Formats: sequence, C-alpha cells, structure tokens
Amino acid sequence: MTVRQITADRMADIARGAAILGAGGGGDPYIGRLLAEQAILRHGPVTLVDIDDVADDAVVVPVAMMGAPTVMVEKPPSGEEIHTALRALQEVLGREITHLACIEAGGVNSTIPIVAAAETGLPLLDADGMGRAFPELQMVLPTLAGVSTCPLVLADEKGNTSLLRTADNRYAERFARSIAVEMGCSAMTAQYILRGSQLRDALVPGTLTLVERLGRTVREARGRRDPVAAAVGVLGGRLLFTGKVVDVVRRTSGGFAYGTARLTGTGAYGDSALELEFQNENLVARLDGRVVAGVPDLICVLETDGGEPVTTEGLRYGFRVSVVGAPCDPRWRTAEGLALAGPGYFGYDHDYVPVELSATRGGS
Amino acid sequence: MTVRQITADRMADIARGAAILGAGGGGDPYIGRLLAEQAILRHGPVTLVDIDDVADDAVVVPVAMMGAPTVMVEKPPSGEEIHTALRALQEVLGREITHLACIEAGGVNSTIPIVAAAETGLPLLDADGMGRAFPELQMVLPTLAGVSTCPLVLADEKGNTSLLRTADNRYAERFARSIAVEMGCSAMTAQYILRGSQLRDALVPGTLTLVERLGRTVREARGRRDPVAAAVGVLGGRLLFTGKVVDVVRRTSGGFAYGTARLTGTGAYGDSALELEFQNENLVARLDGRVVAGVPDLICVLETDGGEPVTTEGLRYGFRVSVVGAPCDPRWRTAEGLALAGPGYFGYDHDYVPVELSATRGGS
Repeated sequence: MTVRQITADRMADIARGAAILGAGGGGDPYIGRLLAEQAILRHGPVTLVDIDDVADDAVVVPVAMMGAPTVMVEKPPSGEEIHTALRALQEVLGREITHLACIEAGGVNSTIPIVAAAETGLPLLDADGMGRAFPELQMVLPTLAGVSTCPLVLADEKGNTSLLRTADNRYAERFARSIAVEMGCSAMTAQYILRGSQLRDALVPGTLTLVERLGRTVREARGRRDPVAAAVGVLGGRLLFTGKVVDVVRRTSGGFAYGTARLTGTGAYGDSALELEFQNENLVARLDGRVVAGVPDLICVLETDGGEPVTTEGLRYGFRVSVVGAPCDPRWRTAEGLALAGPGYFGYDHDYVPVELSATRGGS
Repeated sequence: MTVRQITADRMADIARGAAILGAGGGGDPYIGRLLAEQAILRHGPVTLVDIDDVADDAVVVPVAMMGAPTVMVEKPPSGEEIHTALRALQEVLGREITHLACIEAGGVNSTIPIVAAAETGLPLLDADGMGRAFPELQMVLPTLAGVSTCPLVLADEKGNTSLLRTADNRYAERFARSIAVEMGCSAMTAQYILRGSQLRDALVPGTLTLVERLGRTVREARGRRDPVAAAVGVLGGRLLFTGKVVDVVRRTSGGFAYGTARLTGTGAYGDSALELEFQNENLVARLDGRVVAGVPDLICVLETDGGEPVTTEGLRYGFRVSVVGAPCDPRWRTAEGLALAGPGYFGYDHDYVPVELSATRGGS
C-alpha cells in the first residue's frame, strides 16, 4: 500500500484525461480543473486510495454533479453543496463515511470528488462506477452489482436537499432528474453508497491513475507526435474519423443536453461525413450512414491539433476534431450491461458491435 | 378533557362538511369517506384531541395528499403510503411522533389524517392548518407562524420516498410539487412538524368538530328546510348565487387542476351570470363581471337541492348549484396572510374585500 496524493499541479492532466474518458459528457474540464485546484490549494492535497486497500466495512460515498452539462458551464457548484449533501446523507447512514469516490469519469465528475475530498479531508478511491460517463443515474456498474442508488441526496447552492429512497434505480433517476431540474438543471448528488466489500464488483479500479496518464500522454505528445494517436494508444481504441464540425443541433430538455453534430471529413476522410448523436454523452457515431461506434463503447471527440477533449456542450461549428472509439469495461458488454446502457435502451434498432470489430471506412 | 372518538358512522357527515370547508379543493368526499370508514372498521375508532389538551413537548405531524384532485379521484391512496411516509420522517425526527393533524380541510385531506390515525393508533388533533384548503404547500398558518415545511416527506404507493429540507417554504412547494408530479400527480405528504407549544399559533382549533356539525346540519336540513341556507348559517357566510353550470374549462398542469366555470342564474339570479376561477380550490367568483368573493375567503359550491358539496374537479355542465362565500380565519386577513394567499399572489389585480362586506347583486 503506497499512499498517493493528488496535488494541484496534477489537476490539468487529470481533468483533460477525465474529459476524454467522459465520452463527451461529465462536464467541462476547464471548470473541473479550476474547482479542484482551488479546493486543494485551500485545504491541501487529496489522498488517493486503491480499492484493494479499503477495509470490507468501509463506507464509500460516490459524489457527482447531476444535470445538463450545458447548464453546469454557466452555473458551476459553489463547493457548499458538498457539505450540505454529505450532512443530509450522514444523518440517515448511521455509520461514518470513510471514503469518497467518483461515480463516472468526466471533466467535472472526476474532479468534483477531488473537491469533496479536499473539503472534507476524506480519502478518495482511485476508481469510478462506469469507466466512462453515461447520461442516466441507473447506468452504473453498481446497478449491475445489485447496489441501490438510494439513499440518494441532491443538494443545491441555496441549501435545499432532497433525500430519496426509491423502489428501484430507474425511479431514482426519474425523481432525482426532476429535482435536479428544479434545482436549476444542475445539482450535487451523493448516491450508490458502497461497503468496502462491494468495491470490486461495483467499480472500475484505477480510473484516476488512468485519466492522469491519458491527460499527461496527450500533453507530452504535443509538438512531438500526434496527440490523438497518443490518446488512442492509452485508450486501446481506434481512430474513427478526422474532420470539421459543420452543424450542431442541440436542445436542453428534461434535464439533459440532447443533440446531433455533423462533421465533414478531412485528409484520409475527405469524401466522408460523420454524424454524432448525443444525450449528455456521445451515443452513436455514423460514418456515411453506417454505425461505426455506439454505446456502451466510448466515443471521444478530440481537437485534431492538440488532442484536447471536446465535450458535447462544447461542440461548435468549424472545430477541427478527431473522433475516437474505445472499448468499454467488459461488464457493459454482458446481456445485463447492454440492457442497461446498450443501443436498444437509447431507442436505436442496431445491434451492438464492439468498436474494435466494427467495419470503419478503411476496413481496418 | 373529554376523550372523543371518531367512529365509522360519523364519516359521512365529516367528509361532507370537510368538502364544503375545502372551498372546492382537498379532494372528493366520497373517496375520503370510504378510505376513512374502511380504516376505522379495520383498526378501530380514532381518538380526537383538542389542541388545548396537548403537552408542549408533543410532536405533531400533519399528513395530507398533495397533487391534482382530478388525479386523486382516479388514483386514491392505498394506505401503505402513510406508513412509508411516517417511517421516513421518523428516521430523521429524533423524537417519537405523538399526534397527527390535518393541514387543510377537504373531502380527502380532512379524512386522510383519520386514516393515518386509524392505521398508526396515534391520536388526531381536532384542528387544521388553514381553516379551508389552499392549492400550494406554503399557504398555511404554520408559514405565518414561522414554522418550516421541512423536514417534508413525500411517499407513493410503490414505496418511493423523498425527504426534503429546503431554504424556505416556497422552495418546499416547488420541489415537492415536482416530485408529486413524478409520483403520478398525487402523493402522500407529512410536513410542518409542530411542537405542542406551537399549536395555538399554527392551527385553527376545532376543525373536525366544525366539519362534522356542518355535514350533519346539511343532511338534517334535507326535506325540511333549505340545506344551502343551513350551511350558510354554520359557516357564518352568505349566499352569492344560485344557478346552473353552463361551461367548465379545465386543464391539469404543473401538478394543479386549473379551470374556469361559468354559471347562469336561476330564480332571484335569473338575469345574472357567475364566473368561478379555480386552482384546485375556488379562487375568485365574479358576478356579472364584478368580484363578489375571492381568496383568502372561502367560495363553496353546493348542490342547490341537497347541499352536497361540489369540488372543482366534480363541476359538470348542467349541475344546479348554489355558490356560498364564507369568511376565512382572521389571520389570513392580515398583511402577511394576504401576501401569502391573497388575490395578488394568484395574479389578480383586485384588492381584497372581506366577503361579508362585498356588494352582491342584492346589495345585501
């Protein structure tokens, strides 16, 4: 067991890598980085713990922002919501909270737990609950492991809290989404309380280490080699497309950021077009009308030049981007995983094909 | 101190009188009566307690249904929600619940606390939180007395609960309404937890005694004297109109039943027309375009023949009804009371005129 610490100078790489792994969702890495840097500078470094080093009776609380990323950009959390949420949760937990965790990867949702750990002094797990980001609350490995979302707390910057206990995790999504919308379409949440003994089944280990390596590798590649190729290498993924954003249609509805982006190809993709559909996260990529990647696999959009991640709310006309597909955690590829977050759940009628097996333009 | 009991044979009068005092809202008296009769037959009579006989350190929990009465008619509570809600509340209260209470008068909201008292064996206060019914959660005398709505619990028939703590009572309305809508537009609530020492400031005493007398007086008048006039006598109110419903426009929106009813006069009112506007409860009555009664005073619609109350969701073309105005609790007539539930809050630009002073058609 080695004690590791997250210091402020590591936040740029962590936030960048986390936003790549967030598959378009999980919030803006610039805001996420600033929030965590400030919290660490104010309260000191955050202790990072491997899940193998956590006692079976530990009480682990994943924290996250819930809402539309388009709103989170304009209404970032104040930091106070974390204390409000954890206080409300502690009141009904009975046992002391021992660790915090990330429920998903993302520019904000990987860094908010760092803020929370700095604010509370609690250690943070080097792990997350999906190995990517997904739009709905029930779409996490804890659901597959039989863990309830509840007790779930939502808190806003005005001191309002809602503690939910629901019949199943789909109801938790429904009620929490509705409250998050009333809280201004962005709320702090704490949910999927885990015992130490449940961590191996319910979490992806090593996520913070991975996202830091991803963010650092991309940065170090700049000016020396291709940052997008460097990211593909760390993700074990493949390049799907390189081109220019020519159209983005978006709507913020029911607490989600929905939309479609159209890209025309450049270079080797010069005579092709790619369409991306998203609900907070990128859901499906169609190359010349053919699905080349889709949920639960990751579709990550990076600036072609510098490899900087482009979240779905950041997509703009004229951006030169590369689209990368990467395999999801294998648990998402089981029948249960696909039922929870596969193409069918999102209303698509195509079968799931692992991104490494799908035919891309080059047939590679 | 005399111990009084509510037995099943008294429920018809109580439900009728409560629906009259509900000013069009608070739910259908037939459903309310059946729910309470069944609960009493199953668990035994309910003990009724005067607020003067409650110890200062008592913990009093008002319970009610929240939602659109139009929905409550089709989706009555199962009884299980009461236990779910009180369990969730007890978890954070710290002290044992000693009494239940009504937060408002109404065909269902006066009888749901009777069901809850029968189910739990707790005594019920002979009182309520407004002396009528109002559509929004913060419109209660406890708000005027500085009591917080929270901790507030909502529960549905599927076992889902939401425990709210909010910055103020308006936020409680906002979040609770949104959850109630997600729960199917009708949910069980427990809120405005009162200590015994707060009861005099926060409640209207004697409400259940009053509604039983009102319901009995109307029933006994049938076939002997005018039931509507009998109700007017008990309420200390005045007859505003007698006529026929010729049009009802309604919409269920944002968790409320909104609408307008138009009536043409009969008898002494033969050349007049009355318009009623409602949001769950009747808000304003305009006789030939002139306001003759409005919030916070009570506007009660009764069948002209038998004096049976007609709730807003029960208004239908062709009904022969009498419209009665009655004075509200004096606390609603203060500046604070009018700010909370006067005409201005509901978007009307007329000044409040106590119903006993407003000029009616007869100038009486």
